[in-house]
Amino acid sequence: MKAIKDSVHDYITLDPAAADLLDTDAVQRLRHIKQLSTVRLVYPSASHTRFEHSLGVYHLASRALDSLGIEGDRARHVRAAALLHDVGHGPYGHQTETVIERHTGQHHDEVGDLLGRTDAADVLEFHDLDPDRVAALVRGEGELGQLVSGELDVDRMDYLVRDAHHTGVPYGTIDHERLVRELRYSDGRLVLEEGNVRTAESLLLARALMDATVYRHHVSRIAGAMLERASERLIASGIDVGTFRRMADHDLLVALREDVPELGRRIEYRDLYKRAVWAELGDVPADVVELDHAGERAAERDIADVAGVDDRDVLVDVPGRPTFTEAASRVVVNGVPQRLEDASELVSGLRAAQRAGWRMGVYAPEEHVDEVAAATEAVLGVRAVAP
Amino acid sequence: MKAIKDSVHDYITLDPAAADLLDTDAVQRLRHIKQLSTVRLVYPSASHTRFEHSLGVYHLASRALDSLGIEGDRARHVRAAALLHDVGHGPYGHQTETVIERHTGQHHDEVGDLLGRTDAADVLEFHDLDPDRVAALVRGEGELGQLVSGELDVDRMDYLVRDAHHTGVPYGTIDHERLVRELRYSDGRLVLEEGNVRTAESLLLARALMDATVYRHHVSRIAGAMLERASERLIASGIDVGTFRRMADHDLLVALREDVPELGRRIEYRDLYKRAVWAELGDVPADVVELDHAGERAAERDIADVAGVDDRDVLVDVPGRPTFTEAASRVVVNGVPQRLEDASELVSGLRAAQRAGWRMGVYAPEEHVDEVAAATEAVLGVRAVAP
Amino acid sequence: MKAIKDSVHDYITLDPAAADLLDTDAVQRLRHIKQLSTVRLVYPSASHTRFEHSLGVYHLASRALDSLGIEGDRARHVRAAALLHDVGHGPYGHQTETVIERHTGQHHDEVGDLLGRTDAADVLEFHDLDPDRVAALVRGEGELGQLVSGELDVDRMDYLVRDAHHTGVPYGTIDHERLVRELRYSDGRLVLEEGNVRTAESLLLARALMDATVYRHHVSRIAGAMLERASERLIASGIDVGTFRRMADHDLLVALREDVPELGRRIEYRDLYKRAVWAELGDVPADVVELDHAGERAAERDIADVAGVDDRDVLVDVPGRPTFTEAASRVVVNGVPQRLEDASELVSGLRAAQRAGWRMGVYAPEEHVDEVAAATEAVLGVRAVAP
Amino acid sequence: MKAIKDSVHDYITLDPAAADLLDTDAVQRLRHIKQLSTVRLVYPSASHTRFEHSLGVYHLASRALDSLGIEGDRARHVRAAALLHDVGHGPYGHQTETVIERHTGQHHDEVGDLLGRTDAADVLEFHDLDPDRVAALVRGEGELGQLVSGELDVDRMDYLVRDAHHTGVPYGTIDHERLVRELRYSDGRLVLEEGNVRTAESLLLARALMDATVYRHHVSRIAGAMLERASERLIASGIDVGTFRRMADHDLLVALREDVPELGRRIEYRDLYKRAVWAELGDVPADVVELDHAGERAAERDIADVAGVDDRDVLVDVPGRPTFTEAASRVVVNGVPQRLEDASELVSGLRAAQRAGWRMGVYAPEEHVDEVAAATEAVLGVRAVAP
Repeated sequence: MKAIKDSVHDYITLDPAAADLLDTDAVQRLRHIKQLSTVRLVYPSASHTRFEHSLGVYHLASRALDSLGIEGDRARHVRAAALLHDVGHGPYGHQTETVIERHTGQHHDEVGDLLGRTDAADVLEFHDLDPDRVAALVRGEGELGQLVSGELDVDRMDYLVRDAHHTGVPYGTIDHERLVRELRYSDGRLVLEEGNVRTAESLLLARALMDATVYRHHVSRIAGAMLERASERLIASGIDVGTFRRMADHDLLVALREDVPELGRRIEYRDLYKRAVWAELGDVPADVVELDHAGERAAERDIADVAGVDDRDVLVDVPGRPTFTEAASRVVVNGVPQRLEDASELVSGLRAAQRAGWRMGVYAPEEHVDEVAAATEAVLGVRAVAP
Repeated sequence: MKAIKDSVHDYITLDPAAADLLDTDAVQRLRHIKQLSTVRLVYPSASHTRFEHSLGVYHLASRALDSLGIEGDRARHVRAAALLHDVGHGPYGHQTETVIERHTGQHHDEVGDLLGRTDAADVLEFHDLDPDRVAALVRGEGELGQLVSGELDVDRMDYLVRDAHHTGVPYGTIDHERLVRELRYSDGRLVLEEGNVRTAESLLLARALMDATVYRHHVSRIAGAMLERASERLIASGIDVGTFRRMADHDLLVALREDVPELGRRIEYRDLYKRAVWAELGDVPADVVELDHAGERAAERDIADVAGVDDRDVLVDVPGRPTFTEAASRVVVNGVPQRLEDASELVSGLRAAQRAGWRMGVYAPEEHVDEVAAATEAVLGVRAVAP
Repeated sequence: MKAIKDSVHDYITLDPAAADLLDTDAVQRLRHIKQLSTVRLVYPSASHTRFEHSLGVYHLASRALDSLGIEGDRARHVRAAALLHDVGHGPYGHQTETVIERHTGQHHDEVGDLLGRTDAADVLEFHDLDPDRVAALVRGEGELGQLVSGELDVDRMDYLVRDAHHTGVPYGTIDHERLVRELRYSDGRLVLEEGNVRTAESLLLARALMDATVYRHHVSRIAGAMLERASERLIASGIDVGTFRRMADHDLLVALREDVPELGRRIEYRDLYKRAVWAELGDVPADVVELDHAGERAAERDIADVAGVDDRDVLVDVPGRPTFTEAASRVVVNGVPQRLEDASELVSGLRAAQRAGWRMGVYAPEEHVDEVAAATEAVLGVRAVAP
Repeated sequence: MKAIKDSVHDYITLDPAAADLLDTDAVQRLRHIKQLSTVRLVYPSASHTRFEHSLGVYHLASRALDSLGIEGDRARHVRAAALLHDVGHGPYGHQTETVIERHTGQHHDEVGDLLGRTDAADVLEFHDLDPDRVAALVRGEGELGQLVSGELDVDRMDYLVRDAHHTGVPYGTIDHERLVRELRYSDGRLVLEEGNVRTAESLLLARALMDATVYRHHVSRIAGAMLERASERLIASGIDVGTFRRMADHDLLVALREDVPELGRRIEYRDLYKRAVWAELGDVPADVVELDHAGERAAERDIADVAGVDDRDVLVDVPGRPTFTEAASRVVVNGVPQRLEDASELVSGLRAAQRAGWRMGVYAPEEHVDEVAAATEAVLGVRAVAP
């Protein structure tokens, strides 16, 4: 069996199908998509890729299947889905997924057509693996799909540990060996065995701390907003969205530099906009919180107008209300599987902390920050907060 | 400058006074007192000592002083206090401290008389360090004392990271470099600088997770209760409490084996009592929760009576109501120092989680577990819960 | 002072000049040049960049300067040189440096003109730093230059530890804190203080093990040879070498795909040539070992001719004879600075081991491996060895 | 299956026999024997025990057996032997083994009688494990015995990694996952599979660097010599050697303090003798290098006589000539199993380095160092070297 050295899980041993899938363009492309996209502008060590993450998810899926006693054909499909779960990502991963969804209606976990038309299709067929079944597992369907995409999935377990390892931040540390070992099925639902309320909580806490210090860091959000806007303009300039979606990071960087040069250069050399406004949930009117994509764009135009700047110089970034998938994970307490939010006193506190950490941002080139701040208050009724 | 290799902080560089203090019997004795006493019966790798912890606290104190810009005489006293802060511990550290307090009225952070009569006194004098001032710092007195003993002290920062490293548990991980770097004084109180609510929360979360998985593990509590009872009998058998307090772990193990042979042997070879009762806070009558030492002993005799066993075969272990020192740590928010419990939505959830994790235990030799469980229900009205 | 989190050294604190230099395009470009270029085709976790490495070298330089007691202007220039030492690298770092040297006569540590004409020039001037002096330090000139580029330089210390961390290989581990702490000057030469023969040896051993398992891995060498050849063709196709040198990894990948599509695709998707020949030093005629670039190309044409394949399908890869810079590092033994090769019994063994590990390779597309192997024996008298 | 958290290998899963063996007094006693005895006087973090090491050896043995495809009864015996391989150690492990061998003729790997008469005997019988077969495996007998005790045994792999982890030294790092995975049997000999000369060398290098910086550190050697002499006097004072052998560290510390108070106190509080003489192999006459135990004692008396000090104040410490077990490990090269010393150019260099690192020591209380140095030159013709 082929073994690959990984800096998180040490050796990862591949089954024959995985070894062949690894050599497909669809998977090799993931070498060129960074796991944390713009986060590495804050944490320089975080340049790891979705390729190594996919290997890690494959590894944890194998361990979970062993622990659950699942073998044979079913296990082979789950392992393939684990390895392929990210092939639907566009360049810069999550940072472009809303762009792609807006233009194609497709989420990154819709990999069916990708598996059907890439070289991965032949490899799957050769190993008697059904692409539709693999695609359904990637979407999290069925009992086994929960292992790949769900509240207790191995995707989450790998990225928390891996992102912590590569950023150098001490917060993503979870006991993944224990989590994997304590998984059980109860009436078709994946649950953690008795005695693991704390193990489940640690997953939540890791997520919450990583959100606050890594995933939602304002510098990464600013760069992400710039990237999203630049991508929109790139597509508007005539790049086909199908082509866009199949790009890797290097393709996008070069394409932006050529077709959206101002933003392209700023992203490449980390010459970022600054925060004109950075407002808490309580300081933002409800209708602003609810703004959709078109609403954000309209607001940008209005703010630019009032501020007397080009409307490319205003970025309005209103994140969705905080969600908390992990709160729905299930753990057995006194013999009964319960949702973690019912079993743990911590969940409501974490929810509140996440709401407290929510921020709306308005970004502008450094020289226009003051006008944009003032205009935002005039247009949206949101006051600038000294960042 | 002398440098010592440490598995947590790499090299620790000692100032001349620290280098000399290190060679005193008072500090060398800490080589023979394990940091986590009975915890290593659960986590075999956790046999680290208060000696290496003291070096770690010294190291973090030095870094904090540098960051705060405190130098000269004041800094030298703080560093000495950091190195000496644990010399007052009896054998097995926290596990015997209530025994010692009951018999002497002295807490382990009362090191004044120790510093006065040991070889450390000469070293302090030689380096122009005032033993009384050092002792006051160990008690946490004054502005600088907060660095050694307080809600944001370097003691806590070292032990969380060190205990995690040695147990192998991934939960004690805090960003101690950041914590130390962000300390400030505000009106004489030690606070964390603006932008560190999450840093402060991480300290709390680390503590809560370590409590649940390490410090309050039931096996460690059972062994601790056995050790405490054995120590009481040792003192009752005629060992002077002053002598007892100055023992190190090896002295106590040998003394117990000779003078309290039954429990001594059980502790040495990890042949522990089992849980007859393990009850949550809501299932324990308030007057039982309030039992003091004498009350616990009386309850043991009553239970033994009803169960028809020797009263040495019943251990009643009622921990105090959960406290949460770290909740009072201060962090600057929008320019104003606030108590963390006011600035963070997480604290109340953590408090609730700690209450939920509170357990009263009644322990007995395996062969008497059933009788003791029944008798406990009859005597105290507390039902056994299947552990 | 600005502090950046690093996964190897934890927080790296920047002086004001470094903080400003970091924002220049010259340094930001290093975010897009991977430290280990083609090595990550073997070790997927190794996608770290020259940007984070430059920060690490800056950090170790600061520590070394502190330990040596060097301050002020001299220290500021060394720190700037440490941060800038890699700005002269072309895309894919070492893998393209011979191409660039052939076409420009310039080595990657010639950064003088780069510092003169980029935005870094203004920053240096603003902070009263002399670009020529910085450039001389990068070339390793003068007493202080040895810290930046020499047998005991901090560049080496950082990359060994960092490359080990990111590959996951346990071999690059050196005691960099001790190395930095034990540096001294003796008659203008940087040496390790008395008692450090073993510390110096460990640097050698780390290098030797990393060479064998990481830096000289055959898969990385094959990809490197493909990349070098593709770069030659790219330049031949009309790309100006100055433009080429200033490219980053993403630029090169895209340019190759467009202008050298066959090799470009293979490199991007790791569809690599295979070893037709893999021969030890003793099995290769001396005149073949001595082949220069033109000689290698001629040999490729001859082999292709005999094998009946396109001459693009043959890559001859003859590395230089092994060298061993670290053997010349100096360490004080019984009061006298000695070259490590005179003080350590290990060096000759390591030299021999390096000669034993030397391999000449001839690579070809998988389907032509047999013909190319046979033709290589006919043309160069080198027998294929089953890899 | 019972799982135990380990700071080196994460979770260690125990088979039913191992879980029961773990609870025996014979194995629990190992909790009280430190792995590195006097080394922790140099590296304070190194207070790990033979208990956790035994678990680690058990774990690696399980992995090796899996990799070799060995199952059933044979595997169960190997796993039991791995767990029990150190039960024959006396207090302070290797530091007292020559004392015990001199008085009993028994080496620490002679565990047959221990397994026969302790509570482990019943557990072995209950699980259908043959104590004689287990004892033979511990002695390294038979094909499978090589896994437990031999040049490529899992004991070595665990202790190198574990000792590095706990000391904090970066040198013991080996790729144990790869080593275990690449083990094969060839004609009944354990060998490393093709392509692992470097893997085998790394084991050697790790050992050599750990020897130099950890295992043979002069402070540890001085304390070890004091401990050995104190143990001799303890036995001379009437302690039965059988009783002595069954002591754990704490028993010995207390016994020494009572019966050999002067040395006992010095060992407990690290108040150590100093080096009067520290001489290289080339500076020591051959007949002195060959001194046996009686010869060393006679030399001490003569030196004390000449120096005019009590003969307890002189410790002569002549280590055996360096050996290099790992050099005999076998690795497959071009299809043929070879001894590493024949396959690797490094071995002779390492041998030479080990000879160069050999030191004879003569130790004395600080106040007598000068007289003892002079007397040693007069009596043995060995010159003091400034340490």
